[in-house]
Amino acid sequence: MTTKKDRAALPRETTAPTIGIDALSWVADPCRPIDAAAAAAARQRQDQLTKPRGSLGRLEEIAIQLAALQGTATPTPDPVHILQLVSDHGVAQEGVSAFPQSVTLQMLHNIARGGAAISVLAKSIGARMEILDLGTVTDPGPIQGVRSERIGPGTGNIVREPAMTEAQLVKAMNLGRAAVERAMDSGARLLIGGEMGIANTTPAAALAAGLLELEPRALVGPGTGLDAAGVAHKTQVVAAALTRHVTPERTPLELLARLGGFEIATLTGAFLTAAQLGLPVLVDGFIVSSAALTAVRLRPEARAWMLFSHASAEPGHRRMMEALDADPLIDLGMRLGEGSAAATVVPLLRLACALHREMATFAEAGVSEAGEHD
Amino acid sequence: MTTKKDRAALPRETTAPTIGIDALSWVADPCRPIDAAAAAAARQRQDQLTKPRGSLGRLEEIAIQLAALQGTATPTPDPVHILQLVSDHGVAQEGVSAFPQSVTLQMLHNIARGGAAISVLAKSIGARMEILDLGTVTDPGPIQGVRSERIGPGTGNIVREPAMTEAQLVKAMNLGRAAVERAMDSGARLLIGGEMGIANTTPAAALAAGLLELEPRALVGPGTGLDAAGVAHKTQVVAAALTRHVTPERTPLELLARLGGFEIATLTGAFLTAAQLGLPVLVDGFIVSSAALTAVRLRPEARAWMLFSHASAEPGHRRMMEALDADPLIDLGMRLGEGSAAATVVPLLRLACALHREMATFAEAGVSEAGEHD
Repeated sequence: MTTKKDRAALPRETTAPTIGIDALSWVADPCRPIDAAAAAAARQRQDQLTKPRGSLGRLEEIAIQLAALQGTATPTPDPVHILQLVSDHGVAQEGVSAFPQSVTLQMLHNIARGGAAISVLAKSIGARMEILDLGTVTDPGPIQGVRSERIGPGTGNIVREPAMTEAQLVKAMNLGRAAVERAMDSGARLLIGGEMGIANTTPAAALAAGLLELEPRALVGPGTGLDAAGVAHKTQVVAAALTRHVTPERTPLELLARLGGFEIATLTGAFLTAAQLGLPVLVDGFIVSSAALTAVRLRPEARAWMLFSHASAEPGHRRMMEALDADPLIDLGMRLGEGSAAATVVPLLRLACALHREMATFAEAGVSEAGEHD
Repeated sequence: MTTKKDRAALPRETTAPTIGIDALSWVADPCRPIDAAAAAAARQRQDQLTKPRGSLGRLEEIAIQLAALQGTATPTPDPVHILQLVSDHGVAQEGVSAFPQSVTLQMLHNIARGGAAISVLAKSIGARMEILDLGTVTDPGPIQGVRSERIGPGTGNIVREPAMTEAQLVKAMNLGRAAVERAMDSGARLLIGGEMGIANTTPAAALAAGLLELEPRALVGPGTGLDAAGVAHKTQVVAAALTRHVTPERTPLELLARLGGFEIATLTGAFLTAAQLGLPVLVDGFIVSSAALTAVRLRPEARAWMLFSHASAEPGHRRMMEALDADPLIDLGMRLGEGSAAATVVPLLRLACALHREMATFAEAGVSEAGEHD
């Protein structure tokens, strides 16, 4: 049930998503247009390289898409920038995760010290990573390698209250915007968003269900390792959150504030900004995809700036990919988060660009084309 | 129809595959056993790393399989060795390829000069590549970077005659064995086989159909780019070859000699040798898989030494993967050959090994495990 008190927690938006949120007026800015000439030139080059036409499959598509987004004949994902966002979630109180909530802060330390999966991957692929503490339950104070940008001691429990206030939503999205501006200032050519926060498949599932008007069971899965009873309970929790917060007139921004998380809101702001300023995004898995979906609901043209890294083992991810008309590049049964699947895909993007840049054409190599005769 | 004359072309083998082929007595040697203790230790380590158990999906499997094959706690694909095999096929006379036969030799030059897809990929991933000319139609003489190991001026046209004589089969397989011995002498930890030869999807399809007792249409596809009429014609060509050469009592080695190609026979010898001497193999696409299938028919334990890189866009590839009980790692719509898909997958193996080696354990990082409570 949605009560009057709940509805008052955020101003009701009746026309555009940004109405009533003046500090987010940039959300209405247009996305940067794709360079159609660069795309056509890249496609033409692919067809002249010494291989059967189309035989590099999606590696050809990657090179063409990056050429179109970067407006260049020699696209590259490098430098790769990983924006790593750590925060806690009030809904963890409902027992929706296999891990205790203290793990969020423990993993923040582990990521910063180099022991987490994304730490190893970032080092291995030579990517820069900026780590933001957006709000663990306990403020850890200064941590080497972590930027403290705390929005609060975790979000509200979405079963009982909105995840965040309007002010917190604005702060989170503006943090994402500022992070992308920093990344671009430092020369980044590809953005990866990562996240860590115990229980965050729950807000991601709730937000996606709200945006897509789907039943909770279409989006809820085992996350870090719930059993069947755990998934059933989590489904009830998401259902309760949807009942409390979703009404037909609520905008994507309102749903994001009520059902999302600090990292999801920051990623939404980052992805919108990337599309507006012209930085391609390589989307990770379940939680990050809920932010990508929200960004595309706010500005549909943002979709063109996204590449999709993997099909998550979290079952509801498929529904988000369908809604985004996305066909992820790999399916290795991963379900870790932290941007780990996106980082894993970076070498494939590099190889696609190297092939595009360095292969000889039929003319250069003196190789006959299809249909010629001896 | 199989005539008496055809049957006389190769001695009939009635018991073991190697009977009558004394020079290939090594084919009967056992494969090296897998290190079960190393596998168990690797699995245990994966379960202690700071991530939900199983959440790295197939990256965990890769690390465990390589640990088991290499008998070590710190598996690695490096150095990667690419064995690149170029040869011509008599069946090209039947008009089964979109490209003229002269492209084989042109591409041999292109591969050696660095302009081919595999040249770019090998350089990008830092792999060594040994290029063998096994028999283009015209002997090009010395080429920088190419080892001339010519077995003949291409194979026989399998519609009319066996692809190769017994002596040629023996030479091809022994070349594969020697190449693997060289690779291991130089320290290789992972073997990739690549191939280039106009029309070679036809012998690969014929050989796989013969081994698997399947209809030609289950294996025949467009190759480098045939249209529907071309595929129909190619199917007839394969059917004619099968009628001529396949009888129930023929062994895998006889089918390989009659229906295969020099590169397929050399790859078969290489893969068997790798399994016998203990070098993991990363299997490429359609043509290479027909050699992997032949090797496994000769020695089923060789299967354990293989990782499968990709699902080829060539439709019949799926039947070979099913027969090998293989679930390829990526599916990017590639259909180029040259070992290109296997090379593309190498970075994923590297990341799997880096994660296995470098991630912190729960104990090291002071991170709580699933099921603990705050």
